[in-house]
Amino acid sequence: MIRVSILGSGNVATHLINAFLKADAVELVQVYSRNIDDIAHLKNDIQITDTTQNLIPVDVTIIAISDDAIAEFSNHLNIKGVVAHTSGSVAIGDLNDSLSKGVFYPLQTFSKDRNIDFSDTPICIEAENNQAITILRELASAISGKVYEVNSEQRKKLHLAAVFVNNFTNHLFHMGKLICDEHTIPFEILHPLIQETAKKIQEISPKEAQTGPAMRNDIETIKKHLSQLSTHQKEIYTLLSNSISKTHQ
Amino acid sequence: MIRVSILGSGNVATHLINAFLKADAVELVQVYSRNIDDIAHLKNDIQITDTTQNLIPVDVTIIAISDDAIAEFSNHLNIKGVVAHTSGSVAIGDLNDSLSKGVFYPLQTFSKDRNIDFSDTPICIEAENNQAITILRELASAISGKVYEVNSEQRKKLHLAAVFVNNFTNHLFHMGKLICDEHTIPFEILHPLIQETAKKIQEISPKEAQTGPAMRNDIETIKKHLSQLSTHQKEIYTLLSNSISKTHQ
Repeated sequence: MIRVSILGSGNVATHLINAFLKADAVELVQVYSRNIDDIAHLKNDIQITDTTQNLIPVDVTIIAISDDAIAEFSNHLNIKGVVAHTSGSVAIGDLNDSLSKGVFYPLQTFSKDRNIDFSDTPICIEAENNQAITILRELASAISGKVYEVNSEQRKKLHLAAVFVNNFTNHLFHMGKLICDEHTIPFEILHPLIQETAKKIQEISPKEAQTGPAMRNDIETIKKHLSQLSTHQKEIYTLLSNSISKTHQ
Repeated sequence: MIRVSILGSGNVATHLINAFLKADAVELVQVYSRNIDDIAHLKNDIQITDTTQNLIPVDVTIIAISDDAIAEFSNHLNIKGVVAHTSGSVAIGDLNDSLSKGVFYPLQTFSKDRNIDFSDTPICIEAENNQAITILRELASAISGKVYEVNSEQRKKLHLAAVFVNNFTNHLFHMGKLICDEHTIPFEILHPLIQETAKKIQEISPKEAQTGPAMRNDIETIKKHLSQLSTHQKEIYTLLSNSISKTHQ
């Protein structure tokens, strides 16, 4: 049984709490939040606290708070066992030197109201010694089938790549929806295309999967499209089309 | 039983042939290709021809050839029954006036080697009279649970929206993969995030689903990201981040 505490009450913390509560190999010992009301609903299942001095010694303490608060927060911790944060963009070295530092980064987009299948969520782990990496691997494996050892430099790049494949992609979905809304077309007509676009690249590389006028260098269609777009849409259409053309020339 | 012929041998034609061969309510009567070798493998199952003069009268003849060849090709047809093309960007009026014109547009991204679940593929139909729309709806319903009546103007916009949600999105996947490759990170770590990004917007709007530094107006993270990117990547990052900020200000 791995004994674990979670410090935080946001999206990532909440999803991890749920995953650990379900995992047979994990005992969730304690949850901390600076605002006790945010975790009051847990008090029948686990110990809760709003004071770092009250933290109970465990095998792994997970800091799941906002990125820019992690370093400073870690200075107030004085605990044994591995202390791992969950951030994609914070280096392991940003944690206080007195701690046995680690990273436990679940690479997924978490929303409050959507359940996440943790068994399919990659968890990127990092630590400064073998003992710590072993326990983090064991903990990650208790909730996920996809555990990767990733160093801080790689994690920073992963986080950056995630902005392209998640944040920017989602914004393009939004732009597609705006075009539909404007012409009273149900956006759901595009849902299966969106699903298939995402599925395809699990089997072939995105480069092989590329289709469309920019890849075919179909100037006529591109011209027709541009004539239908606003200045703002045009800018994005042109830049991405040029980028596709360059990739496939 | 709806009697159908398909004119063409590309991706869309091939996928439609397979779907119609499986559909109980459809009799696939004939397939035409200007190059008979491309459809020779079908000759044991259906009649094949490379001559439009040999076309057998059917209920629906489907023109599944490249967009820019449709109008001219339709001038050489002299057949009864509905004649429908499968293009997202060609207007119904581009078909020859002597024909009973229609559109039968399956909105999906088709690859040669990937099976498509047609039951989940939206089919956008259009015709110039009720009788034609009825038979097209019946035919579409025989292979898909998602049939939409969409006029030529709306279809043009759908096709445009598809470029954003499919072509451009796929290119962002490619850009994410390049970042991974450069730092010897397996791209598969991002697969679950990509799947979840696509799934999410079936339940909440892309606007609600938006996350990331641009949405949070997190200037520090944006600066850090920009410092890691090439000039070309930076251009795309900046334009899309500004677009997200504007959407969520």
